[in-house]
Amino acid sequence: MTPQEITVKMALQSWETQVSRAAKVFDSLNDEQLWQEIAPGRNRGVYLLGHLIAVNDTLFKIFGLGDRLHADWDEAFLRNPDKTGLDFPSTSILRQAWTEVHAKLSDHFQTLSAEAWFQRHQSMTDEDFAKDPARNKISVLLNRTAHTAYHLGQVALIKK
Amino acid sequence: MTPQEITVKMALQSWETQVSRAAKVFDSLNDEQLWQEIAPGRNRGVYLLGHLIAVNDTLFKIFGLGDRLHADWDEAFLRNPDKTGLDFPSTSILRQAWTEVHAKLSDHFQTLSAEAWFQRHQSMTDEDFAKDPARNKISVLLNRTAHTAYHLGQVALIKK
Repeated sequence: MTPQEITVKMALQSWETQVSRAAKVFDSLNDEQLWQEIAPGRNRGVYLLGHLIAVNDTLFKIFGLGDRLHADWDEAFLRNPDKTGLDFPSTSILRQAWTEVHAKLSDHFQTLSAEAWFQRHQSMTDEDFAKDPARNKISVLLNRTAHTAYHLGQVALIKK
Repeated sequence: MTPQEITVKMALQSWETQVSRAAKVFDSLNDEQLWQEIAPGRNRGVYLLGHLIAVNDTLFKIFGLGDRLHADWDEAFLRNPDKTGLDFPSTSILRQAWTEVHAKLSDHFQTLSAEAWFQRHQSMTDEDFAKDPARNKISVLLNRTAHTAYHLGQVALIKK
């Protein structure tokens, strides 16, 4: 394996670990529990489910892998905090979207070459990238992995 | 920059981001708040502060960088859950230890060559490493970065 290939393998393992742990926690919550707050006055599980879908769904665009699956949910789960009275999709639609977004991302990730992972992402210019080659696709994935872990720690607090 | 150097830079940036965010959250909590539970019936902030110090302190050994600073705290913060009646160090000692452990880790990390980061860690045999070169020091750091983010998400819930 080349150093690039080793790096891609590590980054993908780290990502898949957090995504599958989060999937397990969401699966362990019934709909009623999903509507509960993670702590008094804080976000509800359903908001964090939608938020993680929305944030991770942006990776399709950022990596140039095609259209997003749920750009229409940004208003509810990205641009606004929880409990602003906005309509949410049903929990069954959200649960299905979680699976779809992450399965499709995994499929796409497998098709990217190690070289492509080390190249710049779409929200960055060639000029900026030349100055800092560490701002590549892998760095975005590491960032999203930590973001997923951050909210996973919160969702895990919902009482079953 | 070589691919290895780019990878090390990304992994360290990801690590330092989570550590400095966590430091900021712990700093924003006074002692009384630190003793509060992150959610009803869950871990207290002070336990998670000790837990993150203890877990991250093990990196000295795992990376072969020298002795741990606080191996004596494993009983309270690693081997046992919160609220088992064990004595905790004072919050001021814990806050100082957080700074010391992470500053010393950063110093050591700077001295490791990119090649060294891609080599196996101490809790792994040469044989196992030959089978999977992705199980190197960087993969351990990515893992600890996600672990820090996980608990950071929880500590951020303490009301100020």
